Amino acid sequence: MVDCHGHYTTEPAAMLDWRKRQIAALNDPGQTPSPDALKVSDDEIRASVANRQLKLQAERGIGLALFSPRAGGMGHHIGDARTSADWSRVSNDMVYRVAGLFPKNFAPVCQLPQSPGVSPANCRDELTRCVTELGFVGCNVNPDPTGGYWRDPPLYDRSWYPLWERMVELDVPGMIHVSASANPNFQATGAHYIAGDTTAFMQFITSDLFRDFPTLRLIIPHGGGAVPYHWGRYRGLAQDMKRPPLSDLLRNVWFDTCVYHQPGIDLLTRVIPADNILFASEMVGAVNGVDPETGHAYDDTKRYVDAAALSDADRAKVFSGNARRVYPRLAGRLPE
Amino acid sequence: MVDCHGHYTTEPAAMLDWRKRQIAALNDPGQTPSPDALKVSDDEIRASVANRQLKLQAERGIGLALFSPRAGGMGHHIGDARTSADWSRVSNDMVYRVAGLFPKNFAPVCQLPQSPGVSPANCRDELTRCVTELGFVGCNVNPDPTGGYWRDPPLYDRSWYPLWERMVELDVPGMIHVSASANPNFQATGAHYIAGDTTAFMQFITSDLFRDFPTLRLIIPHGGGAVPYHWGRYRGLAQDMKRPPLSDLLRNVWFDTCVYHQPGIDLLTRVIPADNILFASEMVGAVNGVDPETGHAYDDTKRYVDAAALSDADRAKVFSGNARRVYPRLAGRLPE
Repeated sequence: MVDCHGHYTTEPAAMLDWRKRQIAALNDPGQTPSPDALKVSDDEIRASVANRQLKLQAERGIGLALFSPRAGGMGHHIGDARTSADWSRVSNDMVYRVAGLFPKNFAPVCQLPQSPGVSPANCRDELTRCVTELGFVGCNVNPDPTGGYWRDPPLYDRSWYPLWERMVELDVPGMIHVSASANPNFQATGAHYIAGDTTAFMQFITSDLFRDFPTLRLIIPHGGGAVPYHWGRYRGLAQDMKRPPLSDLLRNVWFDTCVYHQPGIDLLTRVIPADNILFASEMVGAVNGVDPETGHAYDDTKRYVDAAALSDADRAKVFSGNARRVYPRLAGRLPE
Repeated sequence: MVDCHGHYTTEPAAMLDWRKRQIAALNDPGQTPSPDALKVSDDEIRASVANRQLKLQAERGIGLALFSPRAGGMGHHIGDARTSADWSRVSNDMVYRVAGLFPKNFAPVCQLPQSPGVSPANCRDELTRCVTELGFVGCNVNPDPTGGYWRDPPLYDRSWYPLWERMVELDVPGMIHVSASANPNFQATGAHYIAGDTTAFMQFITSDLFRDFPTLRLIIPHGGGAVPYHWGRYRGLAQDMKRPPLSDLLRNVWFDTCVYHQPGIDLLTRVIPADNILFASEMVGAVNGVDPETGHAYDDTKRYVDAAALSDADRAKVFSGNARRVYPRLAGRLPE
């Protein structure tokens, strides 16, 4: 089983302190910490995941999690491209170490050093480093590096093309995932995340991105935002706009199962072909409580997928078969 | 039967021309047209709805539609408060005339003269005029008058309170509905609308708006954006944040049925209590085609509600009972 959506949300204090110092130094650049200045022991890393992720994986019967830096922590809107490059390096090196210590539990996925007003072409070197030197299997792509103000160009803009080209060359997929919101209109995990997911899909409908990159693979997390719930609306909009049918997009787009109640997973599996659904829990992540209606954790999504009306073959695809196709660099990290 | 969500999207050419002249005059104020300069005959108004809305209402067996100016046409981000005031007056007077000519088919709902950087307090006079002088039964409230840049304060900000107070005094509900997007990231009907709906609900979760206005009634259109699909996520977020349970919000918030496929309506009616669902089709609106999977129009939402697993009593609430409660000023316009 592969959980395609996990973030390192239990970082050691020293890592968060490093980031605080980096941000504090934005107005006093002489104080900027070097990425090498972060010192965390292997024991501290082990302790950071032992009582949460590893425990929950064992309890819930989940195998490997694709593990990336905390999404809300990417903070691409903070500082400049140098800020983002240093912080991405620190963050990616940390998830690399987590995955190295627990290779059966985690495979690393990187954050990119995006920055407002800067072409994502600047992310190619860090992506290549992570994939070719450190064995990362994918990346997270922020459709709004301006932190909730949406001032940079849409995903189909030519400024994105160098990144898409590199992802295709390296054969790694991207999860479209916003970061923190600096905009008081958007609470992060309930508004900005879900709106970002929905917005990205509509950018795919209205553009020729996948005509230009026919082998690019992108995952829309959180069950695809609002998209499966409004699948009829999106089919109808594509039709009215004389765009290709949504089935064409499903050659390039996958949705994860981070939908925290049974009716939502039932809709997802009813509407979206099983080939395009990737199991995920975003654990430990956005929602941490126990649902009083079920007595189980909201984010124990395996229970919902187990209970969904799927054939055994389709359930196996959702739990791991699709992930092997979407993330070919997982080969070797998974049994058989 | 009440369709709570219809827009005047078939405006006479003269009305659209008036708006074009108004916008063209933004850089040449001497050319600004007066609201009184618009001349449209009753016959032109009759013709504008005869072949679309009236025909479809008859074909689909839909009674009264709550009818407001075209949502995408509100364009609050264009010009200044004066621009918005004049255009709102023109637009509201036009839907008033439509409803006056076809009182069994339409009840008028107004747009508000919102403008970026201006407190919605400035909307009180136009709202009062529409409700007390012209018999309007509700209003549309744009949560983002900046047209997709979300630069104005959230709905719980004190700057909104004078508008909420007036709505409570007049006993009219508001539909939370964005307008056009000037931001290339957000396609309007598939991204900005749905993201706006979702964002508004999260603003309700994180604020005390309904503690301060316990009788305020707000409708989130398009099936509540992403909210019902992610109902578990929102329940869990409210719980983690130590906010009241979502059932409390349902004293003040309703969702409409503008969800254009059967699985979406099935989820909506499974997750949201029937007391909080208002029948709507947004006809003639965002999606105009025929679904090749069903052979019926995507926006013929009555078919989906007819087929949903609802008791007869609950279906009657969705089709009209709830609308009578939420829009008390409908009394007198509806039979029995």
